[in-house]
Amino acid sequence: MKDPVYPYASLRDFASKVFLAMGCPADQADTATDALLRADLRGIESHGVARLSGYVRLWEAGRVNAVPNIRVVHESPSTAVVDGDRGLGLVVAPAAMQIAIEKARVAGTGWVAVKNSNHFGIAGHHAMMALKHDMIGMAMTNASPLVAPTFSVERLLGTNPICVAIPAGNQPPFVADFATTTAANGKLEILQRKEQDAPVGWIQTREGQPSTNANELKSGGALIPLGSDREHGSHKGFCLGAWVDIFSAVLSGANYGPWVPPFVSFLAPPADPVGEGIGHFFGAMRIDAFRPATEFKAHMDNWIGRFRQARTIAGQEHLVIPGDPERESEQEKIHTGIPLNPKVVEDLKALGGRYGISLN
Amino acid sequence: MKDPVYPYASLRDFASKVFLAMGCPADQADTATDALLRADLRGIESHGVARLSGYVRLWEAGRVNAVPNIRVVHESPSTAVVDGDRGLGLVVAPAAMQIAIEKARVAGTGWVAVKNSNHFGIAGHHAMMALKHDMIGMAMTNASPLVAPTFSVERLLGTNPICVAIPAGNQPPFVADFATTTAANGKLEILQRKEQDAPVGWIQTREGQPSTNANELKSGGALIPLGSDREHGSHKGFCLGAWVDIFSAVLSGANYGPWVPPFVSFLAPPADPVGEGIGHFFGAMRIDAFRPATEFKAHMDNWIGRFRQARTIAGQEHLVIPGDPERESEQEKIHTGIPLNPKVVEDLKALGGRYGISLN
Repeated sequence: MKDPVYPYASLRDFASKVFLAMGCPADQADTATDALLRADLRGIESHGVARLSGYVRLWEAGRVNAVPNIRVVHESPSTAVVDGDRGLGLVVAPAAMQIAIEKARVAGTGWVAVKNSNHFGIAGHHAMMALKHDMIGMAMTNASPLVAPTFSVERLLGTNPICVAIPAGNQPPFVADFATTTAANGKLEILQRKEQDAPVGWIQTREGQPSTNANELKSGGALIPLGSDREHGSHKGFCLGAWVDIFSAVLSGANYGPWVPPFVSFLAPPADPVGEGIGHFFGAMRIDAFRPATEFKAHMDNWIGRFRQARTIAGQEHLVIPGDPERESEQEKIHTGIPLNPKVVEDLKALGGRYGISLN
Repeated sequence: MKDPVYPYASLRDFASKVFLAMGCPADQADTATDALLRADLRGIESHGVARLSGYVRLWEAGRVNAVPNIRVVHESPSTAVVDGDRGLGLVVAPAAMQIAIEKARVAGTGWVAVKNSNHFGIAGHHAMMALKHDMIGMAMTNASPLVAPTFSVERLLGTNPICVAIPAGNQPPFVADFATTTAANGKLEILQRKEQDAPVGWIQTREGQPSTNANELKSGGALIPLGSDREHGSHKGFCLGAWVDIFSAVLSGANYGPWVPPFVSFLAPPADPVGEGIGHFFGAMRIDAFRPATEFKAHMDNWIGRFRQARTIAGQEHLVIPGDPERESEQEKIHTGIPLNPKVVEDLKALGGRYGISLN
């Protein structure tokens, strides 16, 4: 049975009305909706409308502020720290990225660390804001602890994604957007829904032994840093996740490591916070602060073109240039609509029911 | 049989005389020697004096300029592009990192892309220059193509390392310094010397099939990006390696991807360069451009302390905090000396013989 497909405009209308019902100002509801739907368009369904009811529950629990006063609390010519005032990450992140872009206009680069925020959706949406200004964009965030560093049985880090978005000329931009774990939590959720096993190297048991049970996290297990095991470089994945955590939260004054609050309302935040909310980190680098943008883009075209035409292993047509699958998904789904898992549809209908909003 | 051990001072004296014999100005010979020996001290012997004769051969072949005019060719308040004038990377990199630090003093952060350089030794040495200024340091470099991106049989990227060095207070600094491949090339060289096999997931054959032959690269094989295979996230390792390549070379105007010149004199550089030399990228971020340094360091101490005391899997005493093994190695070897493989000793003695320098 195929999943039902909803037009982009319908889901956009629905989500926007939900954010307005939460009390978000109209412009912020709009910003949040764009960020949320971008995940569905780009095929990262775990971060799209499937999360909408979760955001609402956090707001109902008083853990999300629908009318945040997002403000700069510390700055230098090329840096700022932003207090997200417990706002939706979907609103706080674009505001912070915009500040990074403004800083870069003047100083060449802009770097913004954010505290007191919440889950920001997909990193790519925010980093890609830089592209139209001929800037490189970067976005990272910490997240609830689900990951055990190499040799640990404790979950001390989130899946802590990084996005680097780099403009090109005739080629589409290079957009690398990835969790710093072997597999993103969304990949695990898909296996859970399909009742399938996970490959060895994605998860470990609560004692730190390899597991293929996609539900292992419910028994105290953990996701594994990129690399899968020590021999294959999981300590490097740990370095990446730690880097994201420190830039996002220790620089900004947010919670870090095991203190990052859970993004589900049924789990209470730690009683001994070390900072405020969750943290993000954004960067914008003006290309012409390094070399003329036309020159740079011509070389990016050459870079991408060369990798695109690389000789491949048998059975593979071509290399996957970072950003290609998501862009192709977006170009298709904006016209053909977004398929939703029946459980997600049910969840959205229940949510709509509570706020008198219908899903068409 | 144990490897012979040489005092730090002896090797320092030897290397410094070799750089002077190449015609390096005294201060640059000193800078290069510090960078080179730092690798041996930190236990990354593949990047230490073992490479000295290789640098000399590149100079003899006219591919390294011993008296470079290292200069800024483009800049903004927080950025610069440096032309390394074909100098030793061991000299060019510290000069560029110093410019990043000076930029950060004024603008909050400093970002320097470098073209027209050569192999720069270990990334950690350069990134760590920032620490004593209460700054975060970053260093990355591209390198000769030895790595096949996911699905490729062609070697299109180097092992492209990244270092992020972050100051703490009472705890030692956090220093993550890693190749963006499953295993660094140096790890493979160790297996080759010991005539041992490599684990599956480190290398592939020229047809892109898994291999355990540590000499596979000599038959057209390739190193594999961090992640080992598609199912375990090698596309993320490819993203990392590509990011380093683009920041180091497309931003600066150096050669990128398969055009990066080899660092051995017996292989000719590509006949159709797309830029000048190899490229690096450096960053310095002033902590107090984000929050007071004392506050930041107190939280870094808390971060490191918490991870240090994490519960571990059976058989492991503690987590490895990034930078710990290298710092412990350095603290020991500065006093007890540096063990050298007999083949390296032989190579150094032959080199010394040619320039009338004795190894004591």
